[in-house]
Amino acid sequence: MRTKNKGNAVVGQSGGPTGVINQSLVGVVEEVFEQECIGNLYGAHHGTSGILKEDFIDLKKLSKRELEIIARTPSSALGSTRDKPDQDYCNRLFEVFKKNDVRYFFYIGGNDSASTAHIVNTLAQDSGYDLKVFHVPKTIDNDLRVTDHCPGYGTAAKFVSQAVLGDDLDNRALPGVKIDVVMGRHAGFLTAASMLARRPDNPDDGPHLIYIPERPVTMEQFQNDVIKVHDRLGRCVVVVSEGICDENHIPWAKRIQADAEVDAHGNVQLSGTGALADALVTTLKDAMPGGRVRADTFGYLQRSFPGVISNTDAYEARYCGRMAVYYASNENNSAGSVAMQRFGKGDRYRIETFVTTLASVAVHTKEVPDEFINKEGNNILESYRDYVSPLAGPLPEVGYLKKTREGCGLA
Amino acid sequence: MRTKNKGNAVVGQSGGPTGVINQSLVGVVEEVFEQECIGNLYGAHHGTSGILKEDFIDLKKLSKRELEIIARTPSSALGSTRDKPDQDYCNRLFEVFKKNDVRYFFYIGGNDSASTAHIVNTLAQDSGYDLKVFHVPKTIDNDLRVTDHCPGYGTAAKFVSQAVLGDDLDNRALPGVKIDVVMGRHAGFLTAASMLARRPDNPDDGPHLIYIPERPVTMEQFQNDVIKVHDRLGRCVVVVSEGICDENHIPWAKRIQADAEVDAHGNVQLSGTGALADALVTTLKDAMPGGRVRADTFGYLQRSFPGVISNTDAYEARYCGRMAVYYASNENNSAGSVAMQRFGKGDRYRIETFVTTLASVAVHTKEVPDEFINKEGNNILESYRDYVSPLAGPLPEVGYLKKTREGCGLA
Repeated sequence: MRTKNKGNAVVGQSGGPTGVINQSLVGVVEEVFEQECIGNLYGAHHGTSGILKEDFIDLKKLSKRELEIIARTPSSALGSTRDKPDQDYCNRLFEVFKKNDVRYFFYIGGNDSASTAHIVNTLAQDSGYDLKVFHVPKTIDNDLRVTDHCPGYGTAAKFVSQAVLGDDLDNRALPGVKIDVVMGRHAGFLTAASMLARRPDNPDDGPHLIYIPERPVTMEQFQNDVIKVHDRLGRCVVVVSEGICDENHIPWAKRIQADAEVDAHGNVQLSGTGALADALVTTLKDAMPGGRVRADTFGYLQRSFPGVISNTDAYEARYCGRMAVYYASNENNSAGSVAMQRFGKGDRYRIETFVTTLASVAVHTKEVPDEFINKEGNNILESYRDYVSPLAGPLPEVGYLKKTREGCGLA
Repeated sequence: MRTKNKGNAVVGQSGGPTGVINQSLVGVVEEVFEQECIGNLYGAHHGTSGILKEDFIDLKKLSKRELEIIARTPSSALGSTRDKPDQDYCNRLFEVFKKNDVRYFFYIGGNDSASTAHIVNTLAQDSGYDLKVFHVPKTIDNDLRVTDHCPGYGTAAKFVSQAVLGDDLDNRALPGVKIDVVMGRHAGFLTAASMLARRPDNPDDGPHLIYIPERPVTMEQFQNDVIKVHDRLGRCVVVVSEGICDENHIPWAKRIQADAEVDAHGNVQLSGTGALADALVTTLKDAMPGGRVRADTFGYLQRSFPGVISNTDAYEARYCGRMAVYYASNENNSAGSVAMQRFGKGDRYRIETFVTTLASVAVHTKEVPDEFINKEGNNILESYRDYVSPLAGPLPEVGYLKKTREGCGLA
């Protein structure tokens, strides 16, 4: 049995921000106060890059009120990084850890961040440096393996479904084809969440078509699908993942931008550009001459919008942060990632956490299960509502006027 | 003195939707119940185009609960139109009005809609048809003349400033240059509202640069401005109106899209495309080789997002709808547009309404006054906060961690 580490802790945030990543940070701070084995808690500015520079913030100095403001602020309050540490980088991290007697490392991030945590943990073990490494999951993409879902997803799902709900109302008012491009490189979970904008009892509600990276689609199929809906309803709202692929599994965005940027993790830049959306508009205008076709790319709004936060997501993100510290404080755990298991449906929904290995979460991602995708590969089935609804929470109630036998009613 | 019209009323919604245009609609419905001179209230599906088809909804049949749901739903619950009626079109409108004994026409919209109302009113007078025509102002652009501000603006201003607040936090976490393109063809009011995202006591808060159509800017000035901020802070958040013009007063968007669509009112399509944003990114990447430059176009989200509504705006939109009916019911008024006057500052802010002529609101638009624009033409002055803050309402409180002498504090 391992002895209980005594020493200081470092916490960092990594990768793309979310609406609740600071809830996890505050969860870590709160639980550190509960665990005697941890001394100082250093917040690393901009993740691992801040550790190298010993750019630390003493997080135990924050008041309860300051912690609550930080918790409900979107984006990463410590700053983030996209650095990908190698052996040399890690050796320099250990130098800083040793110098500051750091024995706990908490890293809040996605699968790239879990990879970083895994590398740091492996090299620490190899070099005999006693370090506990825990990963706290966050991603708006919901693409981490093992865990039922990721903190950050519910809030982004709420934003996307509210945005599409409003956009569908806008499209009813001024009909035509509307395309909304949603974040999601390999996994379509966030795009799939837009199905919440459809009210179960209103068959004509949009989104009418949903395309996710899990199902390749040809330009021709895309055109035909949209025309079919437009012929039937006189309008069509389409939600598309930025990572949507063609029949050869090549992202459409990559074909469009031959000179696209690539980051340290080898990811092509998909967000922060309207190129995919505009190319889809051109494709449809070719197929529907004279038609009104518009597109929006939701971009960074969907990951850092203040004031549109899922309560469940905020609670779970905080809880995962706390549990990372709790697990690390147990002498039996040396490293791992916090994962969630789901129990119950609807009002009875609740989660419990457990520890999974860093390796099980690192590198690879999870995709939307087949059971939620329709046969044609151009929509998300109603069964997905049970999965996503408790995470995003309720949407605003809306109504649209329609003529009825009595003169007027709501749709 | 005119006799008091007795007859039915038609209400329609026109132009781009807003978050509170249905508040005005419900205001009209509520006040019609108070005024004995008005019989039936027909809601025209898709504005004037619905009148031609006698596509009417009997709005007096709605329950109190249904009215409240409609009121808080963004976008135009009756549907909208961009039709621009000419003499022949108006003659057909009168046929329908005569057939249905319509003596009141309420039209909720912007300056194009005021033009329509003005044409309808003039032709009604010329042809001796007794009709009262009242325009209820709405626009997210805030570009109507005479009135202090427009219903719809406060809510869009709230959305834009919250979005930029979140985006500035995102940009702190992963620094670089971020451009946000905001709606606004000729008037920069909505773009100017993004200044609310800057907290008065935090000089480094974004947006760091704000460009509006009122001040032409060359590509070179734009590049130099951004580089200067980026050199100082290591990051830069820029907000740009979609109608931003070059030194020859030609919209940049027009230069970029030579084949851009034009609507019935002669407006070039600026929204529903990311072309301007992407061109600005290319411009900056040329000037800052290797720099991280991203852009988002807020698009239709800023006019129809459910759940992000300014309470003041919602109240005023409803009140303007009620007052249109109230004014029309007074035998001394034959036609006009409802306008607002502002009294008091901060907590003492309140408005009163008055009637202005349709001609005074039609066709021409209002621009951001010089007093709110900085000398360089690349930012909005702090004095604008007094004007816009009561309309948008308070923003969510946010905090960002920084190192202090004591170890840690909030920015």
